[in-house]
Amino acid sequence: MSFKTTATIASFGGKLLKLTHTSSTLSCDMALNLYLPPSAESSTQKIPVLFYLAGLTCTGDNGAEKGFFQKRASEKGIAIVYPDTSPPPPRVYKETGLEIGIGIEIAVENEKKSKLTKNRRTRHRRPRRILRLRHGAGFYINATRAPWSSNYKMESYITSELPTQLFASFPSLDSTRQSITGHSMGGHGALTLFLKNPGLYKSVSAFAPISNPVNCPWGQKAFAGYLGEDKDSWKAHDASELLKGYKGKAPFETLIDVGTGDNFYKQGQLLPENFVAAAKESGNEKGVVVRYQDGYDHSYFFISTFSTDHVNHAAKHLFA
Amino acid sequence: MSFKTTATIASFGGKLLKLTHTSSTLSCDMALNLYLPPSAESSTQKIPVLFYLAGLTCTGDNGAEKGFFQKRASEKGIAIVYPDTSPPPPRVYKETGLEIGIGIEIAVENEKKSKLTKNRRTRHRRPRRILRLRHGAGFYINATRAPWSSNYKMESYITSELPTQLFASFPSLDSTRQSITGHSMGGHGALTLFLKNPGLYKSVSAFAPISNPVNCPWGQKAFAGYLGEDKDSWKAHDASELLKGYKGKAPFETLIDVGTGDNFYKQGQLLPENFVAAAKESGNEKGVVVRYQDGYDHSYFFISTFSTDHVNHAAKHLFA
Repeated sequence: MSFKTTATIASFGGKLLKLTHTSSTLSCDMALNLYLPPSAESSTQKIPVLFYLAGLTCTGDNGAEKGFFQKRASEKGIAIVYPDTSPPPPRVYKETGLEIGIGIEIAVENEKKSKLTKNRRTRHRRPRRILRLRHGAGFYINATRAPWSSNYKMESYITSELPTQLFASFPSLDSTRQSITGHSMGGHGALTLFLKNPGLYKSVSAFAPISNPVNCPWGQKAFAGYLGEDKDSWKAHDASELLKGYKGKAPFETLIDVGTGDNFYKQGQLLPENFVAAAKESGNEKGVVVRYQDGYDHSYFFISTFSTDHVNHAAKHLFA
Repeated sequence: MSFKTTATIASFGGKLLKLTHTSSTLSCDMALNLYLPPSAESSTQKIPVLFYLAGLTCTGDNGAEKGFFQKRASEKGIAIVYPDTSPPPPRVYKETGLEIGIGIEIAVENEKKSKLTKNRRTRHRRPRRILRLRHGAGFYINATRAPWSSNYKMESYITSELPTQLFASFPSLDSTRQSITGHSMGGHGALTLFLKNPGLYKSVSAFAPISNPVNCPWGQKAFAGYLGEDKDSWKAHDASELLKGYKGKAPFETLIDVGTGDNFYKQGQLLPENFVAAAKESGNEKGVVVRYQDGYDHSYFFISTFSTDHVNHAAKHLFA
């Protein structure tokens, strides 16, 4: 139940810890990064925590290295947790070839994404080997369909096991002040986990979130694989559907940035308009700030440009 | 003589251009990144340029993605050029096995570096295949020894051919206002190219520079390979030696950051103390600011923490 620190790296006056630990929820060892601002050592008060959930095919390293959250987190006195995006796929997957559609689909999209930015050599992605491609697509839900149901339980991992272990091992972190944000699949994760768990997080924001997965190819592929073909069951994991039934603290508030040059937005994978429509339908439109950023794409150049605003958004609620 | 733009990426209000062009100096096509701040489009005045030279085994992508120079460059109105670090090695190298010592040495150090930060998966390095390992070690000098002398001419490329092509192709850039900075091998490059070319650059700074290569294993290996065994000839490419004979604008000024947790510093590869001693010997100590940053390592977490200060240093001289 404890963490192994494999590296301690100075960053913006604080420390980035590279951690590994054993997850019983996911039946494997998981890696993550934890940024501790200077106040984690200097302050007598516990410090609040912001979870950053990464997108398809990414790991906990992308945000830590290229998202540029640490500068403002250091200034504000906020810790940041950068978890990985999935456990390894179940072995039966490889043996049976089940669900190969998900792997292939993501491989294809991944390739498109790489071509889009012409930046493949330096992307922090898992190698494009067949076995690895099913990594990194956990979608922050608990799978109910075999073989995924054995260990694809990122929802429980992110909302329960990981924070429980973190707060037990790092007493300077304040379990009563958590916020959440994320990118793309991680933006879907942030919005849905916030909406599903009223009171757990003080705030939520998202970069280019998959806002209505039941109506986009990525979401449909993942939900069919992880949850089965009963589409009604998918709605419990869809930010736009969840917002319609939101019963948490009013008004619901969020900050969402989407680049107008984002090819996945243009392809209809993100559908932020549907989230805005759901906000209107449920009377939450005042708190939903969606900013369309002119010409920005889906990359970490987009995230790093606006990450300070998202740390500020979290800080406003964490220090309220 | 012109550039091909393979991608245009929005970043901090400006544009990062991914460029390729043909270098006659290096007898090959070269890739680089060019960041244009918003003022490149909005201002009627030409904008100054900061060159960032990357270190061993890196490319022009490392600084652009992880250095976090763009934010302050955007605010100050400075363009940044991120060149690659070497041409491909000459073919005869592979065929004859000549100079394999350099390749092996760098491979070993590279491996150490990876272990140091436990962060291999996400480092922006060339793949560790034998052929590629001789990439990325150009040392910003013109090789005089075969087979390297045929195309290893990074000094001429950085100081002459590349800027000539850039200023011809991008009229918004001001050829009369250039500054230079760099990391590790690129810090050596920045310091030596500044010292060799009085008046060419308005300012110089460096992150963890190889400050006295004639006295460290990396420099000795590279200089023996590229220049031959006549050690007197090496001094013309050594920042500490060059500073002793500095005849440029007085006082010589620079900003150098070195992390006290940098294993390459501890191993004696960087030797900033020898540069400070040379500054004292030559009466330039007042302008040489060397900051030892407590606990910082050799990675881009170190660079990103202090890059704003280096853009500010360049801005002070570029807008003087």
